[in-house]
Amino acid sequence: MKHNFGPGPGILPHEVLKQAAEAVINFNDTELSILEISHRSPEFEAVLAEAIKLVKELLNVPEGYSIVFLQGGASTQFALAPYNLLPEGGKAAYLETGVWANKALKEAKYFGETIVVATSKESNFTYIPKDFEIPKDAAYFHITSNNTIYGTQLRKFFPSPIPVVCDMSSDIFSRTINVADFGLIYAGAQKNMGPAGTVLAIIKDDILGKTNRKIPAMFNYQTQIEGDSMYNTPPVFAIYVSMLTLRWLKAKGGVEAIEKDNFAKAKALYDEIDRNPLFKGVCVPEDRSYMNVCFVANNPEHEKPFLKYCDEKGIIGIKGHRSVGGFRASIYNALPITSVHVLIDAMQEFEVKNK
Amino acid sequence: MKHNFGPGPGILPHEVLKQAAEAVINFNDTELSILEISHRSPEFEAVLAEAIKLVKELLNVPEGYSIVFLQGGASTQFALAPYNLLPEGGKAAYLETGVWANKALKEAKYFGETIVVATSKESNFTYIPKDFEIPKDAAYFHITSNNTIYGTQLRKFFPSPIPVVCDMSSDIFSRTINVADFGLIYAGAQKNMGPAGTVLAIIKDDILGKTNRKIPAMFNYQTQIEGDSMYNTPPVFAIYVSMLTLRWLKAKGGVEAIEKDNFAKAKALYDEIDRNPLFKGVCVPEDRSYMNVCFVANNPEHEKPFLKYCDEKGIIGIKGHRSVGGFRASIYNALPITSVHVLIDAMQEFEVKNK
Repeated sequence: MKHNFGPGPGILPHEVLKQAAEAVINFNDTELSILEISHRSPEFEAVLAEAIKLVKELLNVPEGYSIVFLQGGASTQFALAPYNLLPEGGKAAYLETGVWANKALKEAKYFGETIVVATSKESNFTYIPKDFEIPKDAAYFHITSNNTIYGTQLRKFFPSPIPVVCDMSSDIFSRTINVADFGLIYAGAQKNMGPAGTVLAIIKDDILGKTNRKIPAMFNYQTQIEGDSMYNTPPVFAIYVSMLTLRWLKAKGGVEAIEKDNFAKAKALYDEIDRNPLFKGVCVPEDRSYMNVCFVANNPEHEKPFLKYCDEKGIIGIKGHRSVGGFRASIYNALPITSVHVLIDAMQEFEVKNK
Repeated sequence: MKHNFGPGPGILPHEVLKQAAEAVINFNDTELSILEISHRSPEFEAVLAEAIKLVKELLNVPEGYSIVFLQGGASTQFALAPYNLLPEGGKAAYLETGVWANKALKEAKYFGETIVVATSKESNFTYIPKDFEIPKDAAYFHITSNNTIYGTQLRKFFPSPIPVVCDMSSDIFSRTINVADFGLIYAGAQKNMGPAGTVLAIIKDDILGKTNRKIPAMFNYQTQIEGDSMYNTPPVFAIYVSMLTLRWLKAKGGVEAIEKDNFAKAKALYDEIDRNPLFKGVCVPEDRSYMNVCFVANNPEHEKPFLKYCDEKGIIGIKGHRSVGGFRASIYNALPITSVHVLIDAMQEFEVKNK
């Protein structure tokens, strides 16, 4: 049995995979594959409608927001956010908390002036800057809620005088949020929602239409909203599997319940990292991510043997990102706590062997 | 048993679906799903490399071209082609052969001047215009090789003094082409290549870098080429199933062999349309598509009963597009000739019943 700690595309619930595999052969007794049905068929329209309804329910999305499933990953949203929200001659504010935040910032530069309100670059992003002021005259303030590479997470959001745009790719649906705090939330599916190939956007309707930019259809949030995520052929299968995953999450008790599970998983693992003399955490404790747990070996020579030891136990995907090194255990929604215990056991066994 | 004549997402080979379903549970004996493996894993890198190799082989792609798998469908390419190829103040030429050609044209208007070299709009696109001159001073000439809605197809390509950009979404891999005739070919996967969720682009390297536009990373063909289709997380599953479909095509004898099959399927169906007094074809015979066969009932009152009759026989997806009416039988690569014979039989039985 494999324990999949990969950072994404990441682990999905076994039940979801089983249903997805069945649908690839025979979707809902249509005698057709989910891969070969029309996106305009009543069967797929029901899938999309259920996916949107589940997003709304699970995150308590208030009135005045539109939910769309798009393509191109969060990286495309890095450009679409300023394309749709930043007027010519306007400026946008960014909180720089890692490589992905920085990539988002770079794309905004194609569309206008950018302000970095704070950065933790000088410490290789081991913490989330907290003393910053959000410029009132910027079009929006962009944040990355969870920094997959460094293992930091914005544990609390904050009031903002301007719309907050949030890349929530690696922690959406993992914890309760107040959607009303945000102007735009976007998230690639492949961590907590489904397979790679679709991106969810939750857009406050009244933030749109405020620039005079002429935006090509596929880049225009308004087109996508008016087209009900079907302005063109949507990524049918990725949306279907996302819907199944959200259905699974609802059956588990929703975001409130999974948040508790996620906290328990993260606490168990961080406790072991803090206890085990062979390892240490990478980030400041208060900003530690409950999704991506980054740690290193105190003795660099232990790194390769520990990876090998994990590999033998079916623990995969825990090699740290090259810009941080060490280990990264991604403990997304679908990862059972039993897998976390297998990793903790491995750390303890490795400790005994290396005393 | 269903006979899937849907226009797309369309039919895929049964063997491909079987393998895809298995990979959703256990991909290549990794004990992981294809949906939860890293796109940076050697296993997926092998899939992507094989997909690109198969495209190269099957279409005899010459040196000097790059092959990438992108997201956002052909509709996104409508904007990316001018974004990448049309200089500020330049112009682009378009052949208007249907709704999709027109949508491509509209997106180009965001980037510069457009010239419609010819259109068949006045006849609701029942033919492909032939007397046109390609303006030498345009940046490129855009064509749609097959018009899914109307059932017309550019049966022969032509020499051009400027790069030809071709939307080949609905007939790529269905017939032999000379890639060297094109500057850029793009095609949504969901007709002849795989499921919805990825788009193939074959780009002549030397047509890039000729505008001074600053292009955001995800919209820039050069970024995608340099990133080997992995500048960001690619649509792993859609690429995997496309690879399986291309592998299937190669095993069938490649494009040359499937072209013969497709011709036989189209000929059988058009022959029946021309013979059967109840039906007639929509387009001028010389421009008839070998992928989407559009026809109507001579007596409009036969339309609904014939659709119902087909439905009872498991023939699905043949309702014509609302802008044309009647029937459309999409006979993509994966549709077996036996399904065409089932449709022909239905037409003949319906004829007898309605004598």
